[in-house]
Amino acid sequence: MNISPQRSPDPAAAAADGATTPGVGTRLDPWLGHYANRTHGMKASEIRALFAVANRPEVVSLAGGMPFLAGLPLETISEVTAKLLAERGAVALQYGSGQGEEAFREQILEVMRAEHIRAHSDDVVVTTGSQQALDLVTRIFIDPGDVIVAEAPSYVGALGVFRAYQADVVHAPMDADGLIPEALEESLADLAAQGRTVKLLYTVPNFHNPGGVTLSRERRPQIVEIAQRFGVLILEDNPYGLLGFDEDPLPALHTYAPESVIYLGSFSKTFAPGYRVGWALAPHAVRERLVLAAESAILCPSMMSQLSISTYLSTCDWRGQIKSFREVYRERRDAMIGALAEFLPTASWTHPRGGFYTWVQMPEGLDTQDMLPRAVTELVAYVPGTAFYADGQGKEFMRLSYCYPTPERIREGVRRLSTVVNNELDLVRIFGTSGGVGAAGGAGVDAPGPDQT
Amino acid sequence: MNISPQRSPDPAAAAADGATTPGVGTRLDPWLGHYANRTHGMKASEIRALFAVANRPEVVSLAGGMPFLAGLPLETISEVTAKLLAERGAVALQYGSGQGEEAFREQILEVMRAEHIRAHSDDVVVTTGSQQALDLVTRIFIDPGDVIVAEAPSYVGALGVFRAYQADVVHAPMDADGLIPEALEESLADLAAQGRTVKLLYTVPNFHNPGGVTLSRERRPQIVEIAQRFGVLILEDNPYGLLGFDEDPLPALHTYAPESVIYLGSFSKTFAPGYRVGWALAPHAVRERLVLAAESAILCPSMMSQLSISTYLSTCDWRGQIKSFREVYRERRDAMIGALAEFLPTASWTHPRGGFYTWVQMPEGLDTQDMLPRAVTELVAYVPGTAFYADGQGKEFMRLSYCYPTPERIREGVRRLSTVVNNELDLVRIFGTSGGVGAAGGAGVDAPGPDQT
Repeated sequence: MNISPQRSPDPAAAAADGATTPGVGTRLDPWLGHYANRTHGMKASEIRALFAVANRPEVVSLAGGMPFLAGLPLETISEVTAKLLAERGAVALQYGSGQGEEAFREQILEVMRAEHIRAHSDDVVVTTGSQQALDLVTRIFIDPGDVIVAEAPSYVGALGVFRAYQADVVHAPMDADGLIPEALEESLADLAAQGRTVKLLYTVPNFHNPGGVTLSRERRPQIVEIAQRFGVLILEDNPYGLLGFDEDPLPALHTYAPESVIYLGSFSKTFAPGYRVGWALAPHAVRERLVLAAESAILCPSMMSQLSISTYLSTCDWRGQIKSFREVYRERRDAMIGALAEFLPTASWTHPRGGFYTWVQMPEGLDTQDMLPRAVTELVAYVPGTAFYADGQGKEFMRLSYCYPTPERIREGVRRLSTVVNNELDLVRIFGTSGGVGAAGGAGVDAPGPDQT
Repeated sequence: MNISPQRSPDPAAAAADGATTPGVGTRLDPWLGHYANRTHGMKASEIRALFAVANRPEVVSLAGGMPFLAGLPLETISEVTAKLLAERGAVALQYGSGQGEEAFREQILEVMRAEHIRAHSDDVVVTTGSQQALDLVTRIFIDPGDVIVAEAPSYVGALGVFRAYQADVVHAPMDADGLIPEALEESLADLAAQGRTVKLLYTVPNFHNPGGVTLSRERRPQIVEIAQRFGVLILEDNPYGLLGFDEDPLPALHTYAPESVIYLGSFSKTFAPGYRVGWALAPHAVRERLVLAAESAILCPSMMSQLSISTYLSTCDWRGQIKSFREVYRERRDAMIGALAEFLPTASWTHPRGGFYTWVQMPEGLDTQDMLPRAVTELVAYVPGTAFYADGQGKEFMRLSYCYPTPERIREGVRRLSTVVNNELDLVRIFGTSGGVGAAGGAGVDAPGPDQT
């Protein structure tokens, strides 16, 4: 299997580090006293510079969440896009409505029906990737200090948004079946007893990023019931839902209680992220606020992006394409799991049944953030676990992604990683720590910029 | 001159009203108690419903800011886009960097050189339209209650963003030569004496929206010097700068003091808004914060949009296209001014030397917001002046745009408007007021949603 020519074999890392962005605050800033309070919470990660290095072709990056696009029918997409521009260019290149095109929202309903969601197109808002939906939902609900309960670990890009709006994130534990109902209930009861205002429960029920686990069918109505009982709105983030390897999609949380769930979807993983198109499906009154917030943020989503995807959905076999993506990712998941068993038997990992990631726990004594510079020196990259917690947890974990490199590269990457880990373990055995050798130190880091997932 | 088929003759109005968005708060909202404080300031305009009506083909809309796209070489754009997708599709459809593509930022520098701006591509951030740049700048600088000084009147979309971040907007007066330096100085001195924190001076120096005036060459360094003296960062919003009818562009404010100005540019008026691509040029340290905020908001701007515009710039005669746009808009400006002189001699208006708008003062006693329902009944639409003030001023003004309708339609629209105005004046003469006849009442309205400009 070949990867078509790209700027580099793994631009995910480039994307993750904002390409050429040096650390913020390294130069004199005459406007330093002018920033808003929220801005002081926005920090470039200490590991950004490392990801810039990890962008080199010789590095196997198991860090990014870039989908494998070489499998797309680019010639066909080229043809239908040309037709769209030639025949409807003056519409495609014009402003549109803030909510997104009606006909396109109808098509989005059809995509969601694969997960048993029944909804009305009037309750859908098209956004600039589902990242923008995360931003807008947080914007309309969160005052500084409000609590968002989120899985431990959670998607780094969501944590970044929550921090930008000065939310207080409280983590709720997961196991192999996803969020644990009893633990969630306990956590919400504790928060209620403390008089804290919990505005949102943020969850990725399917093929969790970074956890690689899926919320079981049995737990779904339980989670919804608990959230409803405590008056907490559920933010169901589901970019990977159609990318399951083994079975049909489980019902979305939205199906159990449409009035208590904001559901986020995306075309970034099932088609292509370069258009930046995602959506939110929300209770009607919430949707109205979301549209106002979206108009304030960007006026309207790109008509060209919307009509391009709309054309793809109506003229190409998008279901067949997703099926083909699933085969690619399943093969890579197998390569990843096989390589972990072969090269890192002392670690443990989740066994994803879909999506892009596995979550790996290192042997005791290792600090994945500490180890990252040495891994990059050995030409392999990953995202340290601390990126996925709001509170500095996670140093014994790492997220490994198998979505972009070929199976051969995945195996080679894990082999290199095992070399680093074994050297690290030698140091731990001899010195009781590995931290003193060329590492950045054990301080908690911020998220490594958006990791594009 | 013909307008190519569109969904309707003036989708600007549809866009302006969010198409099918009913008024917010009209249904029971179980999450009403959950919204953030900032959300209570987001209101759908009372005149949205009217704009939905104004979207009908029989209505001449002088309300929207939609560019005239039928003049674009759509066949050529179709061809080069097809080539881009066929040859570089896996890059164009992938994630990119949060700051935007380096090569594209270099091209943006070339566009800005037409306004004498010298800068480095590292200080440019590509955004989802310049509306997003407005949002991100406001996000990183404004705490609730901070002051933004803005021209009176100001772009409705900027006022919406400022309100969303709970800024306190203080208006500074303009005359036919733009912002008045003495008045600005006085206003800043007053605010300083009151101990208020003024974070930004928001200005549209060229072909002002909605004012239709241009800041004179002589005043430019004066405005910059005053802002610098008071420690206020200038937010220079310049979507129309290259669309002057008579002379070469004046130097941007940025050219006088790059460290004191954030300059915003856009491809929406000089090429096409459907890609949603604008940019910010900012002092380096500010640019770093903007990229972090942008990544949090959307991860990265659309690669497909960036590469599409990049391809257009490198393969098409974009300068010639802008020249052709200028001819089109000049002819329409002439039609507008001629029709105003012919049909509304008792009103007064600004004489734009570029851009899309003229700002019209009605004869005494008229309330343009009050009058709008009757204008729509007479099949003509405009934006009432109150939309462009943060403080309820402006009821005697309206913004008329000449960018989208043909000269014939513009003349017909102004003729219809004169009928409404004359009827209105009759009522004023007889009853002393016109407000009792089917009007929504004189209450201040919010901005009519984004008016796409």
